[in-house]
Amino acid sequence: MKRIYLDHAATTAVAKEVFQAMQPFFSEKYGNASSLYSLGREAKEAIEDSRAIAAKVIGAEPREIIFTSGGSESDNMVLRGIPEAGDHIITSAFEHHAVLHTCQALEKEGVKVTYLPVTKDGFVRTEDVKKAITKNTKLISIMHANNEIGTIQPIAEIGKICRESGVLFHTDAVQTYGKIPIDIKNIDFLSASGHKLYGPKGIGCLYMKSGVSLKPLITGGSQEHKMRAGTENAAGIVGFGKASELAMKNMGKEAAYETKLRDMLIDDVLRIEDSWLNGSRKNRLPNNTNLGFDYIEGESIILHLDIKGIAASTGSACSSESLTPSHVLTAIGLSPVKAHGSLRMTLGKDNTKEEINYVLGVLPGIVENLRKISPMKLARR
Amino acid sequence: MKRIYLDHAATTAVAKEVFQAMQPFFSEKYGNASSLYSLGREAKEAIEDSRAIAAKVIGAEPREIIFTSGGSESDNMVLRGIPEAGDHIITSAFEHHAVLHTCQALEKEGVKVTYLPVTKDGFVRTEDVKKAITKNTKLISIMHANNEIGTIQPIAEIGKICRESGVLFHTDAVQTYGKIPIDIKNIDFLSASGHKLYGPKGIGCLYMKSGVSLKPLITGGSQEHKMRAGTENAAGIVGFGKASELAMKNMGKEAAYETKLRDMLIDDVLRIEDSWLNGSRKNRLPNNTNLGFDYIEGESIILHLDIKGIAASTGSACSSESLTPSHVLTAIGLSPVKAHGSLRMTLGKDNTKEEINYVLGVLPGIVENLRKISPMKLARR
Repeated sequence: MKRIYLDHAATTAVAKEVFQAMQPFFSEKYGNASSLYSLGREAKEAIEDSRAIAAKVIGAEPREIIFTSGGSESDNMVLRGIPEAGDHIITSAFEHHAVLHTCQALEKEGVKVTYLPVTKDGFVRTEDVKKAITKNTKLISIMHANNEIGTIQPIAEIGKICRESGVLFHTDAVQTYGKIPIDIKNIDFLSASGHKLYGPKGIGCLYMKSGVSLKPLITGGSQEHKMRAGTENAAGIVGFGKASELAMKNMGKEAAYETKLRDMLIDDVLRIEDSWLNGSRKNRLPNNTNLGFDYIEGESIILHLDIKGIAASTGSACSSESLTPSHVLTAIGLSPVKAHGSLRMTLGKDNTKEEINYVLGVLPGIVENLRKISPMKLARR
Repeated sequence: MKRIYLDHAATTAVAKEVFQAMQPFFSEKYGNASSLYSLGREAKEAIEDSRAIAAKVIGAEPREIIFTSGGSESDNMVLRGIPEAGDHIITSAFEHHAVLHTCQALEKEGVKVTYLPVTKDGFVRTEDVKKAITKNTKLISIMHANNEIGTIQPIAEIGKICRESGVLFHTDAVQTYGKIPIDIKNIDFLSASGHKLYGPKGIGCLYMKSGVSLKPLITGGSQEHKMRAGTENAAGIVGFGKASELAMKNMGKEAAYETKLRDMLIDDVLRIEDSWLNGSRKNRLPNNTNLGFDYIEGESIILHLDIKGIAASTGSACSSESLTPSHVLTAIGLSPVKAHGSLRMTLGKDNTKEEINYVLGVLPGIVENLRKISPMKLARR
C-alpha cells in the first residue's frame, strides 16, 4: 500500500544523513561531554560544532544557543524564567499550547496575561500589540508561524515595538526555524525543535540574546553555561546540528518546491463544494494547507485517509486526544461546528506531485461519502 | 591502544540491543505519538510498552511512570513542583547538584531548606531526618545511592519516617534504578535516567505514586497524562524501555560480577601508601570505587590515565568544569586538599578482570610519578 505522509507540521522522519551523523554517539563516542578524558572531550567538541551550526541558521552567536529537550521546554524556559507575580505579559489567542497553557499556569501565580485576538485571516495585529503594552509589561510572546494554519506573524514589526518599549520579545519558531529566513535583530528569545526539521525528537534549542538572561527551568550541573542542567544529549544535539545544516543549505529550494505542491493541493481541494481554506494564502508557510469542509468531522476524514495510506491531521497533534475544537480555528472566528470540519495537510521535502495527485484522487470521494451519512447534512435537507 | 572505560557512573555506552530497538523509531516509525493515524498509534503503543517495563523494574503501575528528558529534569519536577514559599523541605548535604542547586534556587523563593550532614562513612542518619521534620515540612529528598562515593542510603527507613509524618518522600535513584532492588512502598517520587543504564542520553523518568501529584514543570500539550508536555521522544523512550528490560533481567548477575571486580580494584589500590577509600565498603554500589591519594591532584591522575587509554573521573562529571572541591567529599569530612586527590572508577558489565589488572599495573606508577613532582610532597620533606 502507498504510504503518503502529509503531517510534517506534527513531526518528520529523521533524514538519512542526520541519522548517520548521530549514530556514532550512541555506542562509540558515548562519553559524557562534561568528562575530562578524550571520550568526553570528543562529545563536547561535537556539541560545540552543532551549536555553531544552529546559531548560523538564524545569524546568532554560538554562545546564544542553549540546547533543550524541545520546543515545549524552550517555551516554558522563557515564560517561567522571566515574569514574576505582578508582571504583565502579552501573547496571542492562537499560540501553541506550550505557550498558552503555560500562560494560564502563570496567571494562577499572579502574572497578568493579555491574550490578543487575531484576524479572520490568521494574523496578530501590530496595533493591538502596541496598545496592550503597560508599564508592567515584561515579556511579549508571539509565535513566528501558526502551527495549524501556517500564517506567518509580523514578528519583525512586533520585535521593533518591543525594542522601542523596552519589553523582552520571545517567538516560538518551531514551525519556521530552518525553513524560512528569520531576522533575530529585535528578538530576545526564540524556540526551535529538531523533529520538525528531519532531526530527532527530544531535542531543541532556545536562542537567548547575548546580554539578556532568565531564571533556568532545570538547575543542577553546569551544562549549557549553567542555563540548562542535565547530561548533554550528544546524539540528539549532533542530529539537531546536522538537520540544521541541511535545512540551511536547502531552505530556498525546499520552500519553493513545497509552495508549488501546496498551491496545487489547495486549488484542487477548493473545487469540492462547501469547502474553504483556513488562514490567509499570503504570508503562509510554504508547506501548510488547512482546509474546512461543511457537514463532516475532520477526525473522520483523517481515519478514512489513513485507510488509504495517507497521514494527515485535524490540527495540532498535541491536542488530538481532546475533543474540544481547535483554539486556533475558533480564534480566527470559526464556529465550533465548522472548526471540527478541518483537515491539515502539511508537506515535506520528499512529497511528490504523484502523491498529491493520489490524495486529490481519493479526498473528494471520502468527503462525499462522509457527507452522505452526515447527520448535519441530513438535518439540512 | 587499549580503551578501558571506568566511568559508568557518569554515563554508559548504549547497548547493542537497545540501539537496535531504538533504530526503527528514527526514520521508519517516526509518527507523532499523539497523532490519530496508524504511524502515530504505532509510536504510542511502543511508548506504552516501554512504560510498562519501566514500571515493572520498581514494581510500580505503568500510569505511575512519567517520561522526562533525564534525571535532572525529574529532580527539578519534584523539587519545583511541590513546595511553595514558606514550606520546609529536607535534603542532605551530598545530594546530586540537580537536587542541591535546585534547593538553593528554592531558598531564594522563600522555601526553607534543611541540608542534613552525613557521616564520615557516607550515610544520612535516620535520626537526623526525624529530628529535622517540622510542622511545615512538605518534602524530603534523599538520594538512593551517592553518585560519587556509591554509598546506599537507608531510604526504606527514611520512607517509613516520611509516611508516619505525612511528609512526601522523593529519592534520586539515578545510580540505582535497574541496578539494585528498590522497594517503592514508602516512596512518593523517584528519579531515574536512561544513560546510566546502557540506554540513550536525553531520556529518563519520574515515578509518581498514584494519588500523589505535583505542579508540572513543562506545560503545553497533554502528553504524559498532562504531567509533561512535549512531543514524546519515542526512540528515547523505547531505548529506556529496552535498557530497563535488560537491566531487570541481569540485575543480580551484573551486581555480583561488578562487586568482585570492585573489591579486587579497591584491595589492590589500597596497597599504594597514603591512599584511602572514600565511603563505606558496606552498603556500597557494586560498581563504585572512590579512592584518595595524598599529595597529588585527582585531575592529574585522570589525564595520565587517559594517556594510557583509561577513562576515569575525579567525581561527578557534572561538576568537572569547576575547580571547587567535591561537595560530597567535603561533606564526609575531607579537607579541600584531600578532596582534590580523589579518583572515582566505576565499573560496568563489560569490564573484564584483564582490564582491571591493566589498570592496577599502571596506576601505582602514575601516582608515584605525580608525587615526585608534587609541590605538596616536596613541601613536606
